[in-house]
Amino acid sequence: MITVKARSTSGPTDPFKPTTVDLRDPRPADVLIDIAYCGVCHTDVTHSRRLRSSTTRYPLVPGHEITGVVSAVGSEVTAFAVGDRVGVGCMVDSCRECEDCRAGLEQYCRVRHVKTYNDLGWDGQPTIGGYCEKVVVDQAYVVRIPETLPMQNAASLLCAGITMYSPLRHWKASAGKRVAIVGYGGLGHLGVAFSVALGAHTTVLEVTEDKKDDALGAGADGYRLTTDPETFTDLAGFFDLIISSVPADLDYDAFLKLLARDGTFVNLGVPKGPIKVEAFSLLAGRRSLAGSLIGGIEETQEMLEFCAEHDVQSQIEMIDADRIDEAFDRVSAGDVRYRFVIDISTLADV
Amino acid sequence: MITVKARSTSGPTDPFKPTTVDLRDPRPADVLIDIAYCGVCHTDVTHSRRLRSSTTRYPLVPGHEITGVVSAVGSEVTAFAVGDRVGVGCMVDSCRECEDCRAGLEQYCRVRHVKTYNDLGWDGQPTIGGYCEKVVVDQAYVVRIPETLPMQNAASLLCAGITMYSPLRHWKASAGKRVAIVGYGGLGHLGVAFSVALGAHTTVLEVTEDKKDDALGAGADGYRLTTDPETFTDLAGFFDLIISSVPADLDYDAFLKLLARDGTFVNLGVPKGPIKVEAFSLLAGRRSLAGSLIGGIEETQEMLEFCAEHDVQSQIEMIDADRIDEAFDRVSAGDVRYRFVIDISTLADV
Repeated sequence: MITVKARSTSGPTDPFKPTTVDLRDPRPADVLIDIAYCGVCHTDVTHSRRLRSSTTRYPLVPGHEITGVVSAVGSEVTAFAVGDRVGVGCMVDSCRECEDCRAGLEQYCRVRHVKTYNDLGWDGQPTIGGYCEKVVVDQAYVVRIPETLPMQNAASLLCAGITMYSPLRHWKASAGKRVAIVGYGGLGHLGVAFSVALGAHTTVLEVTEDKKDDALGAGADGYRLTTDPETFTDLAGFFDLIISSVPADLDYDAFLKLLARDGTFVNLGVPKGPIKVEAFSLLAGRRSLAGSLIGGIEETQEMLEFCAEHDVQSQIEMIDADRIDEAFDRVSAGDVRYRFVIDISTLADV
Repeated sequence: MITVKARSTSGPTDPFKPTTVDLRDPRPADVLIDIAYCGVCHTDVTHSRRLRSSTTRYPLVPGHEITGVVSAVGSEVTAFAVGDRVGVGCMVDSCRECEDCRAGLEQYCRVRHVKTYNDLGWDGQPTIGGYCEKVVVDQAYVVRIPETLPMQNAASLLCAGITMYSPLRHWKASAGKRVAIVGYGGLGHLGVAFSVALGAHTTVLEVTEDKKDDALGAGADGYRLTTDPETFTDLAGFFDLIISSVPADLDYDAFLKLLARDGTFVNLGVPKGPIKVEAFSLLAGRRSLAGSLIGGIEETQEMLEFCAEHDVQSQIEMIDADRIDEAFDRVSAGDVRYRFVIDISTLADV
């Protein structure tokens, strides 16, 4: 057993406090990673602070945007060596045998994927996230961070990045395609960077002008307000692909009408209530409403190489471990440009 | 002007009565068709009998599943000659210039397609449906009925048939794919026939056992009741494609869970209220909810050739023109196996 420092919360209204957690000794296929950085995902906040959640296991150590350096490997590990720069995203295991796992789409595992935190591994032990000094993960769920990608920026790619990259690739964002990204935030700013790098005509749909300069600076071809009714008339039938990371209720019919024939609206967020659409919004133009969930391990590795090649980096605000609660409040308020990353070395100061 | 016999209704509660209507003289690109048969579509009923409809133009001559024989052609008609066996479906014109029209997908015309009845042509004149002796249609919106297809069976193919064929082809129903058809009715029985002919594993999802023998006799591999909760557990994640022609509200989340990864649920009907789905029903398995609307002219011709080649025929109940009201009542009650077709020669008896 390995005892390490971490930050945990004991309940939905309890602040994060220093603690220690016990990690399993590395098994033959495991990698022990000294964590350098961990991103703060909106999911971390909802898992920690959702008052009525029946699924949160307290005390909770969140974090699924982990980068670090391999400090030990099990006897059967072939993919990684001590000193390697690596990352861990939203999952640390899956059944490995179903059709979807074999296709490299472990996130859709027909049994289940084991989440990086707030879950139980196949051994029945709780998984512990990246707000922690170290993590032990099977090598099959670890990715390599290219040398030219800074470790602190790479962290956000492992959830926010892959969640945008996977649908952009699956629905073939490329030159000649028109893509809209709804919401220029933690996910959206990466979606724009990917879409631009893939050669697609890229428009941001936002509720505020505040991020316009950032978005256009990142290469977006357009920036339109969804609070302006003219956006919906001017751009009717314009887009091949709309990707929304907004977890709030939208007027989905209005957004669907922005799609050209055979266009797809991909929803990545989980609003509180059901999504409602009129049948005719889909019938007209043979449109689709789809969902997408993070990405597989192989595709996550591909995304990291893509980021290195195309200089795609997340825009981050670095915080030390004492500022997690403040970061959570600001994430809830949408007040971050565009992703918080915890400097895990500051855990040791306590 | 050509004056011909027809059957029309003057209001949502008025029975059909013999009448005469005036058709335009054929223009250079027009075909004059002596109608032999016209199918009775559920849409005919809703257009005629929807009490609160603000879009119905009375007196109404419905009918958009028309087969007949060319009796005259305009000076510029090259595609058809007098004596040709032809059909007309749900549309008789469109803008012809937009991207979708040029792609042969006139049903998604970015301006609008001109509906076969209850619409206005580009000349501002009302369109008149197939419950009528003759129809005048531009040759670009007329299809050819293969010699081996009986005219009375071909009629139903021109709306019910193409509405099922187009999504089956678009979403690639074929050997190795698992398809479910929700509802074994006018559309569904043709959907099963097409899906089986395309080589897909085909399951019918129905609310009653009544049609089981017919469905299995038509080649369906399975027949399951949606009233039985075990259907939804046994078949979870099973289908690549589910096509529903049911215009009633469904538990869409339950149906979406029957889809495998990357599966698509295609809705063809228009329920009264919005379609409601939980975001997670789409996120899990990267599923899609889509719509589809009839099919283009080129694809309708392709479908007719496919029917001739694979001996796909609609199952019909022939009626004479005096039984339209009775047929409407039975269509509303779902009491038809599986499509009414009016013998237009009986119009002349009045």
